Amino acid sequence: MAKANETETRWWGWGDINKTYPVEERPGYIPFLAEKLDIKVERLRAPDPKLEDLTLRDSRLKEKALKTLAGIVGDENISTSKRDRVYHAIGKSYRDIIRARAGEIPSPPDAVIFPGTEEEVVQIMKFAEAESLAIVPFCGGSSVVGGVEPLEKKGLSGSLTVDLRRMDRVLRVDPESLTARFEAGIWGPQLEEELAKRSLYMGHAPESFLFSGLGGWIASRSAGRQSTGYGKIEEMLEAVRIVTPRGVIDTLDVPASATGPDLDQIICGSEGTLGIITQATMKVRPLPEVYDYRGLLFKEFEGGVQAVREMMQSGVIPETIRISDPEESSLAMVVRKPSSNPKKEKGIQAALKVLDIFGYSFVTGAFAVLGCEGKEAEATERMKRVSAICRKNGAVPLGKSTGLEWYHGRYDHPYLRDIMMGWGVMVDTLETATTWDNIMNLYRNGKRAIRDALADYDSKAIVTCHLSHSYRTGSSLYFIFMGKIAKGREIEQWEHLKKKASDAILDSGGTITHHHGVGYEHAPWFEREYGPQGMEALRALKQALDPAGIMNPGKLGL
Amino acid sequence: MAKANETETRWWGWGDINKTYPVEERPGYIPFLAEKLDIKVERLRAPDPKLEDLTLRDSRLKEKALKTLAGIVGDENISTSKRDRVYHAIGKSYRDIIRARAGEIPSPPDAVIFPGTEEEVVQIMKFAEAESLAIVPFCGGSSVVGGVEPLEKKGLSGSLTVDLRRMDRVLRVDPESLTARFEAGIWGPQLEEELAKRSLYMGHAPESFLFSGLGGWIASRSAGRQSTGYGKIEEMLEAVRIVTPRGVIDTLDVPASATGPDLDQIICGSEGTLGIITQATMKVRPLPEVYDYRGLLFKEFEGGVQAVREMMQSGVIPETIRISDPEESSLAMVVRKPSSNPKKEKGIQAALKVLDIFGYSFVTGAFAVLGCEGKEAEATERMKRVSAICRKNGAVPLGKSTGLEWYHGRYDHPYLRDIMMGWGVMVDTLETATTWDNIMNLYRNGKRAIRDALADYDSKAIVTCHLSHSYRTGSSLYFIFMGKIAKGREIEQWEHLKKKASDAILDSGGTITHHHGVGYEHAPWFEREYGPQGMEALRALKQALDPAGIMNPGKLGL
Repeated sequence: MAKANETETRWWGWGDINKTYPVEERPGYIPFLAEKLDIKVERLRAPDPKLEDLTLRDSRLKEKALKTLAGIVGDENISTSKRDRVYHAIGKSYRDIIRARAGEIPSPPDAVIFPGTEEEVVQIMKFAEAESLAIVPFCGGSSVVGGVEPLEKKGLSGSLTVDLRRMDRVLRVDPESLTARFEAGIWGPQLEEELAKRSLYMGHAPESFLFSGLGGWIASRSAGRQSTGYGKIEEMLEAVRIVTPRGVIDTLDVPASATGPDLDQIICGSEGTLGIITQATMKVRPLPEVYDYRGLLFKEFEGGVQAVREMMQSGVIPETIRISDPEESSLAMVVRKPSSNPKKEKGIQAALKVLDIFGYSFVTGAFAVLGCEGKEAEATERMKRVSAICRKNGAVPLGKSTGLEWYHGRYDHPYLRDIMMGWGVMVDTLETATTWDNIMNLYRNGKRAIRDALADYDSKAIVTCHLSHSYRTGSSLYFIFMGKIAKGREIEQWEHLKKKASDAILDSGGTITHHHGVGYEHAPWFEREYGPQGMEALRALKQALDPAGIMNPGKLGL
Repeated sequence: MAKANETETRWWGWGDINKTYPVEERPGYIPFLAEKLDIKVERLRAPDPKLEDLTLRDSRLKEKALKTLAGIVGDENISTSKRDRVYHAIGKSYRDIIRARAGEIPSPPDAVIFPGTEEEVVQIMKFAEAESLAIVPFCGGSSVVGGVEPLEKKGLSGSLTVDLRRMDRVLRVDPESLTARFEAGIWGPQLEEELAKRSLYMGHAPESFLFSGLGGWIASRSAGRQSTGYGKIEEMLEAVRIVTPRGVIDTLDVPASATGPDLDQIICGSEGTLGIITQATMKVRPLPEVYDYRGLLFKEFEGGVQAVREMMQSGVIPETIRISDPEESSLAMVVRKPSSNPKKEKGIQAALKVLDIFGYSFVTGAFAVLGCEGKEAEATERMKRVSAICRKNGAVPLGKSTGLEWYHGRYDHPYLRDIMMGWGVMVDTLETATTWDNIMNLYRNGKRAIRDALADYDSKAIVTCHLSHSYRTGSSLYFIFMGKIAKGREIEQWEHLKKKASDAILDSGGTITHHHGVGYEHAPWFEREYGPQGMEALRALKQALDPAGIMNPGKLGL
């Protein structure tokens, strides 16, 4: 079987080039959007852009430089091909996809290099520093904040994207300490497969799981589906190794320490601006016997929020918790795939009517997914206790099949986004986090800002929100919104919305990002959140480890 | 009632000047030490050193400077009195006590200042920078690594200790989010009292609890008795505010974030070298209904270690776990306080004999203390499951009274240390942490190194170790050792041991400190553990936030 990181992927959109979202199975989708957003869908799928039609700036790397680099990694591991340069030129944000489909790839790397060892990384970095070339570390390239686009910087003469996919080995598995050390280029599926062979499991599954990897997760402080139970990537991190232009930092593999500021937590979130993460030791756990996912319907969103707070604060914690607000819940119902069994579908519709009689509806209520993973007896018992808290707060169970349906579709939505964009729909996400006392305030202000920003461009809006990734002291909030693309003014419209929504998030006490990272797109608000002295500290770190400023310029405001 | 931070404390030793350790209640102590260490105890208590007998360097602060500082905080909040300067001149390490009792206080602050507001802290810092005065932040002063001693630094003309005890207010309690914000000068007892009034609890209780406070805990990455359940201080930290010479960093109060390197975790562990922590928002929890502490006896130390690993990895986690090795267990038994009820004591002795028949003894086995705190039903259920894991691994229960005895004496041992030093006993502790696969290796090597180092000075040794503060991937190890003081060569003997033991810890894969911090005494090994690039990064941070280098010079190797 081919490894995940050998899959051929789209340069102009999401994921596996041979996969898409079966939107035809969901007949409610287009009519719903057409009505809500006032759009006319002319064709089911936009044609794929052709690489041949794309004009790309020539590589600025001289023959001699390429030769030297080829001498480090071997001829077959450096490329200036159009495909490789385009593939590595952007990430997967709305802004990226808009530009890619319009043929606007302003800043491709001048070459892409695939080192096989850390020693090669060191040599590449030395060469890049001597030649004033920017280095952009690249793992899966799934950044939705502009984290992998090479940006121009004064004094640098070109850029080199360092794709780590060949550095994907398992270095050590310690079943006694429940840790495993990997090279940073390993992608999600391969990492979990390798662990599963040893009956182990890491349990970090962001929506990008199939097309992202360890180095990128650590660099961007990623969160996975089960972060409520297992923690974000920074909590799974036991030790890390990074090659900086000034040398290697290799932190000690110990469970905790009081040795000064925590280097792991300085490297985690550094987004390639300090160096290239080459290895990490991760905390792992026994492979779950069961993955128990269930659907529920709360009478009100507030009840769902209250239930999650109660769980977290009483220590009865599911791995996954996701509570959709009414707008997201009704969208989920409208666009659902009807059962292929007419009798079963009839039963579902009848059940929905009964629910409605009792005041439970997908229009006014909150759809929720709960997931407990682990040993069967333990996970089942926990699910019982979690469900009891939900019932107490006004939830009715929708059963395992609803949970499983969500579980099986959990990696599909980015494909749908690409299709919707072809229909003229602006569709993007924003995420933040705050403390429980502020969660409804941030929720309302976030939604209002997005709605207003869309209205400013004469668009109606669908603005949904869910609560996921929860903590004892608060939770993340994840907004998904749709509007009508302002044709010809796509980027301007997006920038307007981004500004309005991001300002509202900071003004309302939220963080500018809970798990997507900062990259280029969040940099202005990051600087506001981090503060002038925080930025000074960060610039000093950068100056110490990357004095020539070659590492991923323009990200984190650096 | 007087506040904790108004207690009169010893400058030459531990704690409340009106308290001591009732060593006379433990008749086994002196004979045991006399035999094991070949010492002769001549008097039960060494006389207290007198402040009058101490010669102290004059304050180098000019009248004008003192006037300016008094103008900032008020006349009554700045002191150059002998008592205040001596009290703030050292911490509570073995080395400190040895020197204090010998009248060697080489580097007292030139003045001690007690700001009442953050604005005063800012002004003090500005003045200190302009006048090239070192600033040493001071909370409880209980550092055992030389963290609060003003050290000379080229270019600085004097030193100012900033004691935060007046900044001890509760700023905000949020029972919905379970967070509370305090000024950093609040000490342990007052912090928990304030929370208890609101039925809340933080649950951070290091051995220094009665004489230490929030700012110091955060600055030194402290761990409390219940860190196995509640986490170290860095895990309790939600947001923090620090005044640096270049301005204030005030991190956002959110449960998690992906906004670059984690500033909280840069400030936590900075040991006063970057600035003065003035406020922090902490994660709190409902006040426990029960504090269930129990004693157990494992047949073997290895069984105890295995039991803790099993608990941690299966997620059945007590708040407190402490497993003593046989040497510590037998010490605990020999020096125990016999019951005042002769019948009861007879019963205990009979029980010990029965245990011995079944192969359980305090000489070959491992004494353990388990603690579960929380709601009664939940804590009891958890204690049952934890106990079952212990029994499976060769433990017999010793009941609640043994647990409670430990619990009630949990803050007393530092008093005992001071008394033993008066008997000519060198007594000190070392602590580290490592992963489970390495725990027995580090344990053996640590003990051997300490024993060898004592032998090098012709001393027999008692070297005990316990495992506490445990994690899914590993645990801390805490060594307590006793030997015969090499009279007249006390510091030389201590330095020799420190070097030999610390080298052994690093060579064996342990961290140089799990929760005491780095300060002055661990600096050489800290630099080795942190690595040259780590140190470069740290120096750059320091340079950015404290360019004049006035903040706590000489600590963290800075």
